[in-house]
Amino acid sequence: MGIVLGPNRYGKAENRVVRIVRDTERHEIRDLNVSTSLRGDFAAAHTDGDQSQVLPTDTQKNTAFAWAKKHGISSPEDYALALGGRLLAATPVADGVTVKVEECAWDRIEVDGAGHDHAFVRRGGEVRTTTVDLTRDGAQVVSGLQDLVVLKSTGSEFKGFLRDEYTTLPDADDRILATAMRAEWRYVPGADAGSGRDWNATYDAVRALLLATFATTYSRALQETLYAMGRAVLEAHDEIAEISFAAPNKHHFLVDLAPFGLDNPGEVFIAADRPYGLIEATVTRGEER
Amino acid sequence: MGIVLGPNRYGKAENRVVRIVRDTERHEIRDLNVSTSLRGDFAAAHTDGDQSQVLPTDTQKNTAFAWAKKHGISSPEDYALALGGRLLAATPVADGVTVKVEECAWDRIEVDGAGHDHAFVRRGGEVRTTTVDLTRDGAQVVSGLQDLVVLKSTGSEFKGFLRDEYTTLPDADDRILATAMRAEWRYVPGADAGSGRDWNATYDAVRALLLATFATTYSRALQETLYAMGRAVLEAHDEIAEISFAAPNKHHFLVDLAPFGLDNPGEVFIAADRPYGLIEATVTRGEER
Amino acid sequence: MGIVLGPNRYGKAENRVVRIVRDTERHEIRDLNVSTSLRGDFAAAHTDGDQSQVLPTDTQKNTAFAWAKKHGISSPEDYALALGGRLLAATPVADGVTVKVEECAWDRIEVDGAGHDHAFVRRGGEVRTTTVDLTRDGAQVVSGLQDLVVLKSTGSEFKGFLRDEYTTLPDADDRILATAMRAEWRYVPGADAGSGRDWNATYDAVRALLLATFATTYSRALQETLYAMGRAVLEAHDEIAEISFAAPNKHHFLVDLAPFGLDNPGEVFIAADRPYGLIEATVTRGEER
Amino acid sequence: MGIVLGPNRYGKAENRVVRIVRDTERHEIRDLNVSTSLRGDFAAAHTDGDQSQVLPTDTQKNTAFAWAKKHGISSPEDYALALGGRLLAATPVADGVTVKVEECAWDRIEVDGAGHDHAFVRRGGEVRTTTVDLTRDGAQVVSGLQDLVVLKSTGSEFKGFLRDEYTTLPDADDRILATAMRAEWRYVPGADAGSGRDWNATYDAVRALLLATFATTYSRALQETLYAMGRAVLEAHDEIAEISFAAPNKHHFLVDLAPFGLDNPGEVFIAADRPYGLIEATVTRGEER
Repeated sequence: MGIVLGPNRYGKAENRVVRIVRDTERHEIRDLNVSTSLRGDFAAAHTDGDQSQVLPTDTQKNTAFAWAKKHGISSPEDYALALGGRLLAATPVADGVTVKVEECAWDRIEVDGAGHDHAFVRRGGEVRTTTVDLTRDGAQVVSGLQDLVVLKSTGSEFKGFLRDEYTTLPDADDRILATAMRAEWRYVPGADAGSGRDWNATYDAVRALLLATFATTYSRALQETLYAMGRAVLEAHDEIAEISFAAPNKHHFLVDLAPFGLDNPGEVFIAADRPYGLIEATVTRGEER
Repeated sequence: MGIVLGPNRYGKAENRVVRIVRDTERHEIRDLNVSTSLRGDFAAAHTDGDQSQVLPTDTQKNTAFAWAKKHGISSPEDYALALGGRLLAATPVADGVTVKVEECAWDRIEVDGAGHDHAFVRRGGEVRTTTVDLTRDGAQVVSGLQDLVVLKSTGSEFKGFLRDEYTTLPDADDRILATAMRAEWRYVPGADAGSGRDWNATYDAVRALLLATFATTYSRALQETLYAMGRAVLEAHDEIAEISFAAPNKHHFLVDLAPFGLDNPGEVFIAADRPYGLIEATVTRGEER
Repeated sequence: MGIVLGPNRYGKAENRVVRIVRDTERHEIRDLNVSTSLRGDFAAAHTDGDQSQVLPTDTQKNTAFAWAKKHGISSPEDYALALGGRLLAATPVADGVTVKVEECAWDRIEVDGAGHDHAFVRRGGEVRTTTVDLTRDGAQVVSGLQDLVVLKSTGSEFKGFLRDEYTTLPDADDRILATAMRAEWRYVPGADAGSGRDWNATYDAVRALLLATFATTYSRALQETLYAMGRAVLEAHDEIAEISFAAPNKHHFLVDLAPFGLDNPGEVFIAADRPYGLIEATVTRGEER
Repeated sequence: MGIVLGPNRYGKAENRVVRIVRDTERHEIRDLNVSTSLRGDFAAAHTDGDQSQVLPTDTQKNTAFAWAKKHGISSPEDYALALGGRLLAATPVADGVTVKVEECAWDRIEVDGAGHDHAFVRRGGEVRTTTVDLTRDGAQVVSGLQDLVVLKSTGSEFKGFLRDEYTTLPDADDRILATAMRAEWRYVPGADAGSGRDWNATYDAVRALLLATFATTYSRALQETLYAMGRAVLEAHDEIAEISFAAPNKHHFLVDLAPFGLDNPGEVFIAADRPYGLIEATVTRGEER
């Protein structure tokens, strides 16, 4: 056997595209972080330094900004599909392209009870994401959010777990449950690569459903909570094929105040940084066992 | 001349205190990052390794958590004043103590149109801060916020500036103005160390005023905008003696789309990371010149 | 079709394990960041909140620290193999376990020309990594490094690339090439799960070879440089089956000093943060085409 | 009393200046992060939006890069003094200017036992710093380092400290002492603003002395260690007037392995993130009491 090139791809990461829509005096803003990556038969660039089939990452960057103007940004998904299509068209040897977008939300600044026309304050909180993967045969869209930080101050337990000789954790009947969630849902492929979909409406609906399910589900483990959240999303959204979670269990430890003559019935906690539990799960459609 | 100990202080930084108020089924949450620091005659610890007058940083930590229970956290300012008073009382050789608090806000998760009793989502956006400095003679309270990210998509210019042979910047008649602001306002000392003040109401009012002034002031430079914001706060709040700003000018550069046959009348920008302008200014009370 | 649980796993991430070996007066230190994750039939925890087969992440943490004592840390790989074996043994329904380790290196502080017995300074620079994946059938070891920041001030070009109407980049005959490299090499499975291997010696040899190849290879693109580095490693190390790279092209842009009457023949650069090129490639063994 | 402008300054922060010296085939590299800030009578910019006396931050950036060529970078101090002088000269109403520089060190990549001519690997570890403050009357130079991470695995105790009812910490006879140090030393003003000084040699000497003193001083508290380090520097360097430290006590907690039937005589520790002790001290010249 010899030594050969395996899987490879290349692109421009973290293009900070800010698009102002100023067709009227009431401006709109979209604030994106865009990464593109092409894959295909780029072997000659690796083995012979031959760039003749390599669309430069600088050109990918230019295209990302030009498409913010030419195509506009009605949603991250719609923009990513268009941008990916262009990059694939411009690169004959490419088999596929991945476009990742992170979006920060902005709110209008409130002045005298109304949102201002052209002044905004960044919302903070979670980042909306999409990863669009295009080949010559079609598109796959996976949308989601990251760093959605949620906490329940009661309604969570963890007990009856497997024990071995290294287990010191006591059963917990009532604890804080907190996580900084990443969720990604994969859309059922559309005949039209999803061009008719209202991606923004689905995003808002899924986000609201995730939050409400987190709030209202009694939790016997973070695993159970994630599964309930995933179920709720799949039940409500036929257009979603699958949803995946990565959820650090951000531990809040009850502080022992007894040495100071104080009781602490679930009132004072220390929030820990590391280590943290990390729970990952996918909820999908299939035959129940 | 010999070699001597100069200014010194010590404490525990970044205690992550989370306090749940669960007196009723409708819980409240306060999420703080607390740092304490004592100063005074701690020379013997430095020169002779004598710890007999040194209240351990571990004890300062314990006290920060105990006070979250004993005194509670109606506001960062009120809690910091109480905690600082305790630490000063417990450390005879201390002349002064500084307590810094950063607070993250949480919102109730909305379920069926109403906020949930015990499930929360972290708001994101700016962090509320306070720095309380106590001596045996009194207290100084400086409150503020950091990382308030604001942007105007028009209503900002920068022109007529000083030029030298290294100046290449053209005049700008219409640009994006954006910053991640830090503001800190110093309260007029109160007879009672401010114990009767409604710190939360003032915070909300100042924050709203800063935002509204940013939105509605035409900007001929970030300096002018900051000064206007400071003036507005001092005019509205007699209890505030002074306000200081540190405001990175987060540059958004208009992308040149002309090579691609596209015009770009203030629509597509690249958000830059570094370098950034950094404007710092204090607005205070005094005799006008 | 119904809604079912898909792939899932859970564990404790970022256990900061510091191990001092003090059998003699000349101490040794290993400074690790350890993450473990179990997978298998944990469906009941998700669907019914039944934890009876779930070894708590807290127990995984305890085991990580206990194994630093019981088994010791002669290398990240050796420790990870032992820890993974224990976790798999302790969890009957687990099919597999992944143990990831990041290691920071420390040097002895030099005193009078010799390394001190028990005082250390952290080396900085790259982090050594290993990811060990164990199933009931065997082990896979992937070792590497991340954040190895390297730069060539000449000996790099980029030209003759594919152009379209969004291409503005000129050919570059002589540029800075810089990257913060992540490399991961997969070991050929050993009959004994690698227990006889000298993981530390291989790490040092591969690191040196990556650096020397980077330095001495004329670069017609970062892709070519990565491929050369991978080839060199596979040629020299039969025990390595495959090596993968993720390499951000950290752009250094030549500053235009002509407006100031200064030439700039490759002397003054601005280092950019974002966007950056991102090149990913695997070099493997196989039939050459 | 009216409302007036208080202290203010402005500039360009974090210019990432990379300078290659390529006068011979053996290149040199300096990798700086440069921030400049002007102060003086800039009131009109704040109150009237009048920029006529304001040298743009963009011009400050241009000058930082031009000076890397015109003046060169023999040391951060020398470059900062020259750059500051230029900015002050170019801005009539400025009273003073501050130039801050952070420098990352690079090593030559070793090939066949020798350092390569034009290939480098970033050293990591501590960052060298300087803050030069210039007025029309003279210069003050404060140099230092930050993030020098050091650890002693024995030779450190903490006991006999002040106790109150919130003290639970036991005496420690033998503990890990670790910190990520920031040190800054102020130079005695020179008749020539220090232009004849060998800043690089002093930096290397102070760094070595700090490390050696940390290593060889038995520590009864971090305070005592810092004071010893400061004394050693002032005793050896007449050109240094004062040295200040900020040193987080990076706690390493001994893990209780007794529940698992294992003893742990100072061998296995968990490195904690937050909270941390924070010790700040200045050692200066003056009359001993």
